[in-house]
Amino acid sequence: MITCGRYIRSILYLLLLISVQFGPHAVEGVWPLPQAFTSSPERYPVNSQDFYFVYGRQSAAQQGCSVLDTAFKRYFSLIFPDHNSGSPADRLSWTIYLVPFCVPDNLSISAGKASLNAETVWGAVRGLETFSQLVYQDDFGSYFVNKTEIDDFPRFQFRGILLDTSRHFLPVQAILKTLDAMAYSKFNVFHWHIVDDPSFPYQSSTFPDLSSKGAFHPMTHIYTQSDVRRVISYARLWGIRVLPEFDSPGHTTSWGKGQPGLLTPCYKGGTPSGTFGPVNPALPSTYRFMARLFKEVSSVFPDSYVHLGGDEVDFHCWRSNPDVRVFMQKMGFGGDFTKLESQAFVLQRTSLSVVEVWRAGCYLCEVRRVVKAGLRVILASPWYLDQPGPTHNWARYYTVWPLAFKGSEEQKKLVIGGEVCMWGEYVDATNLTPRLWPRASAVAERLWSDEKQTSSVDKAFPRLQDFRCKLLRRGIQAEPLYVGHCKHEYQVDYKHTDLF
Amino acid sequence: MITCGRYIRSILYLLLLISVQFGPHAVEGVWPLPQAFTSSPERYPVNSQDFYFVYGRQSAAQQGCSVLDTAFKRYFSLIFPDHNSGSPADRLSWTIYLVPFCVPDNLSISAGKASLNAETVWGAVRGLETFSQLVYQDDFGSYFVNKTEIDDFPRFQFRGILLDTSRHFLPVQAILKTLDAMAYSKFNVFHWHIVDDPSFPYQSSTFPDLSSKGAFHPMTHIYTQSDVRRVISYARLWGIRVLPEFDSPGHTTSWGKGQPGLLTPCYKGGTPSGTFGPVNPALPSTYRFMARLFKEVSSVFPDSYVHLGGDEVDFHCWRSNPDVRVFMQKMGFGGDFTKLESQAFVLQRTSLSVVEVWRAGCYLCEVRRVVKAGLRVILASPWYLDQPGPTHNWARYYTVWPLAFKGSEEQKKLVIGGEVCMWGEYVDATNLTPRLWPRASAVAERLWSDEKQTSSVDKAFPRLQDFRCKLLRRGIQAEPLYVGHCKHEYQVDYKHTDLF
Repeated sequence: MITCGRYIRSILYLLLLISVQFGPHAVEGVWPLPQAFTSSPERYPVNSQDFYFVYGRQSAAQQGCSVLDTAFKRYFSLIFPDHNSGSPADRLSWTIYLVPFCVPDNLSISAGKASLNAETVWGAVRGLETFSQLVYQDDFGSYFVNKTEIDDFPRFQFRGILLDTSRHFLPVQAILKTLDAMAYSKFNVFHWHIVDDPSFPYQSSTFPDLSSKGAFHPMTHIYTQSDVRRVISYARLWGIRVLPEFDSPGHTTSWGKGQPGLLTPCYKGGTPSGTFGPVNPALPSTYRFMARLFKEVSSVFPDSYVHLGGDEVDFHCWRSNPDVRVFMQKMGFGGDFTKLESQAFVLQRTSLSVVEVWRAGCYLCEVRRVVKAGLRVILASPWYLDQPGPTHNWARYYTVWPLAFKGSEEQKKLVIGGEVCMWGEYVDATNLTPRLWPRASAVAERLWSDEKQTSSVDKAFPRLQDFRCKLLRRGIQAEPLYVGHCKHEYQVDYKHTDLF
Repeated sequence: MITCGRYIRSILYLLLLISVQFGPHAVEGVWPLPQAFTSSPERYPVNSQDFYFVYGRQSAAQQGCSVLDTAFKRYFSLIFPDHNSGSPADRLSWTIYLVPFCVPDNLSISAGKASLNAETVWGAVRGLETFSQLVYQDDFGSYFVNKTEIDDFPRFQFRGILLDTSRHFLPVQAILKTLDAMAYSKFNVFHWHIVDDPSFPYQSSTFPDLSSKGAFHPMTHIYTQSDVRRVISYARLWGIRVLPEFDSPGHTTSWGKGQPGLLTPCYKGGTPSGTFGPVNPALPSTYRFMARLFKEVSSVFPDSYVHLGGDEVDFHCWRSNPDVRVFMQKMGFGGDFTKLESQAFVLQRTSLSVVEVWRAGCYLCEVRRVVKAGLRVILASPWYLDQPGPTHNWARYYTVWPLAFKGSEEQKKLVIGGEVCMWGEYVDATNLTPRLWPRASAVAERLWSDEKQTSSVDKAFPRLQDFRCKLLRRGIQAEPLYVGHCKHEYQVDYKHTDLF
C-alpha cells in the first residue's frame, strides 16, 4: 500500500561505544509491542557524544536517502532531548557496512553493536522508533539500552487516523504535530477529511472560489497548495501516506458557495425553497466540474487512493427537485435514489475497491458482508475517538478484535487495517492532542501487534502508561490514563507571568 | 468573603481620544452577563497610542495600589495584544480625578470618556475585565468600543474552582494559567485540594518528610513555600482567594509515608495486616501533629478558611484496630464511628460554618437540609467537570438553579455560592485547560449573573461562543462548543518542524 518512496532493503547500524553493565532492568517496553521481543538485564551505557547512526555497507540505502538521513537527525534528538553540544547534523557520520538483510525486519542490540535490518526504508524508520523507545535514562541522567533482540512487522498494512479540517480548521502546525505522534505509534496513513458541509479550506488552483468563498476565512482558514505539499512531504518522511477525502455528493454545502449551480436546489410546494441539497446530478456541468476538481486532486495528492466519502446522502432534496426526477427517468433509475447516488458518482470515478466500515452496531457483521463480496475492508466503527470519554476507556478501543468473524483465511486477509476517526464537531487545535493520545495508541497496538500477545488490558496498562510518559517527553500533550505521574510532566507554555 | 486586600472605593478613568462613529454594532456582549447592560450603535475608535488608565482624583485607590497598577498593565496587554511600540508599563500614566462613587459598581462609556466606579479594588478589577471584553477589532485591525452603560455586581459572593494536585501534580505554571482564565470569567476562589491519598506535594516547613517521602517525586513534584506564596500573591492580584484543603482524617495515605505512626494500622484476624487506614485517632501524637501542621497551614495561607475535607472516611480499618476500639469506649462513642470522625477531628479544629454540598442525586434536597440547620452552603454537586463529556453539555452546567428549593428569603441567603470541581483522576496539565474551559464559564455566569436574564441556553450560546474566542485570543486553550471558527485560532506550539 505504500505508494511513495523507495522499496529498498536497508541496513542500519547504531554505533555504541559499549561497556557492559548489569543494572536494574528498567526497560518498560515498546509500544506497539513488537512481534518477537527478548531483552536481558545486561545493559550498555549510551552516550550522545559517542553515538552514531551509520548505513550498512551492503545497504541499498545510503547517505543521500532523504527519508533515513532526516530520520537519523530526528531520532537523535528524540533519544537525547537534552543534548546540546553542537547540532545533531554536525555530529552524525555515516559509514558503509556490508551486512546481509533478513525478513522480518530485525533489531539486534548486543555488546559491541546494534544493528537494524529492514526490507524497506519505511521499515527502517519504524525500527528507529523502536530503538528510540528502548533507550532510557537513570535517575542521574545517564542513558542506557539493554541487550535486546527484536523481529517485527505490522499485523495490518493500513493503520490510519482521520482528521476533519472542515468542521473546525486545524492549523498546519497542529497537523504536523499529529503526524509526529502518529509516527511514534507507528500509524502510517493520514486520512485527511479536508472539506465538508461547514467549510472548504482546500485552496484549489482550478477553482479558487471554492476556498475564497467556502472557507471559514479566505486568507487565514485555508490550506494553500504549499501547505498541502508541506503536509505531504512531512508525512512522507515519517513513512505516512496522505489519503485525501473530498466527500461528495452529500456533505458539500460549502462547495456551493464558490461554485454556483453545483448543488441541487430544493423545492417546497412546487417552487425552489432557497435551500440546497447534495451535488446536482441532473446537470452536465456538475460532471465537468467534478472531473476537473478530481483531476487536480489526483495530481496534488500523490497517493494512489482518493477517499470519496459518499456517506449520509440525504435524498429529500433530490426527490423534491423536478429536474432530478426527470434525470432519474432518463437514466432508468426509477425511484431508487441509491442507484442515482452510486452510479452517477462513485462508480463513475473509480472502481470501489476498498470499503471503509463506518457503521455502528454490529460492525463485524458488516465487515463479514463486505469481505464475502470479495472487497477489501478498513475498519473504523469501533474507533471514533472524537466523542470524549474517560481516558480509561482506552481499553474499549484496545479490546477490539477485527478478525473475530466467521470467514475463510482468504476473507480475513481482505481486512487490510483500520483507522481512528477524529471528527471535528467538538474538536479543534485546542483539544485535538489530548483527545487523540494516548487513546489512539491503544488502537495502534491493535493494528500493529500480535493479538495473542496483546489480549490483556492489565498487562498493557503499565506499558501504555510508560509510553504516554514518553509522548510527554517528546512534547505531545497526551492525557493521563489514571492517577500517577511522569518523570517529565507536560510543560505548560505560559507568558503572562512576567507582568507580575 | 474577600479577606485579603483593601476595601476601598475606587474610581478609574479610561481615557480615550474620542471621535464618534456609527458603525455596524459589533458588540457580542460580555461574559458573564452584567446585571444591567445597555449599549448603542454609537462607537468610538480606541487606539493603543492614545489609551491611558488613570485613577480618579477622589479615588481612595491611587498609584501605588499594586492590585490596580498591575491590573492596568495586564488589561492594556489583553486589550491590545498586538501593541508592541514600547512596553505597556512605559506607556501608562495615571492622573487623579475627583469623582463621587456609587453602588452598584458602574462602567460608563460615552463620547469623550469612559469611567469605572467601584466600591472595592476587586470590583474595579472585575470592571476592567468587563471593559476589556467590550473593546473589539474590525476586519482592518482597528479597535472600537461602543457607547455603553453597565451596572454590575455578582449574584453569589463565592465563585470557586477546585483543582486537585494530588492525583496528578500540576506544575505551578498550569495553576497560574488557570488563575488567569478564572479572572476572565470572574471566578474569585481557587479551592486548592493540595494533598490526598496518592501524593503529598505540599512542602511543609514543619514536617518536610511529608513531601520528601509522600510526593510523587521529592524535588520535581512538590510545591515549595515559595511556589505557594507565588500562587497566593498571583491570585490576589486577580482578586482570587486561595482556599487550601488538607483533607483528613481519610484521604491521607500519602501522609503516612513521611509521618510514621500517623495512620491507623488495619488488623486482620487479630494481627496487623500491614495496610493502613485513616489517621489514627487513638494516639495523642496524632493530635499534636495535626495541631502543628494546621498552625503552619493557617500562617502560610492567609485565607481565613481552611477546607477540612472530611469526606469518604472508611470505618473498616478503625473498626478492625483494637486500640481504636478502646479509645471509642473511653470517649463514650459506643460503636458510632461517625462520632469519632466528627468529634475527634472536624469539630476539634474549627466550628463547622460553611458546608459544601458534594452529594450527587437530589443536591437541592441537601442544600435545603443544610440551610434549614442555619448553615451556609457552597454548591458543588452539579458542577463536577473532571468527567469528560461532549462540550455541548455546557448547557447542563448552565441550567442549574441553585435557589430552586422551598425556603425562606433568609434561608436562600445562606447559599453563598458554588464551585466547579476538577478532580485529578484523569486530569493533569495536558488536558486541564480544554476540559475546564469554556464549560466552567457556563458555571461562572450562573454564579455571577441575574438568573432571569440568563435562563435561555439559546440566547447564551452565541455569546459564549464569542467569549470562547476571546479566551483563545488570550492564549487559553478553551475547547470549541460546536462547528465553527474563531478569527484567531489557538496557536499550537511546535518545534520539530525545523529539522525538515
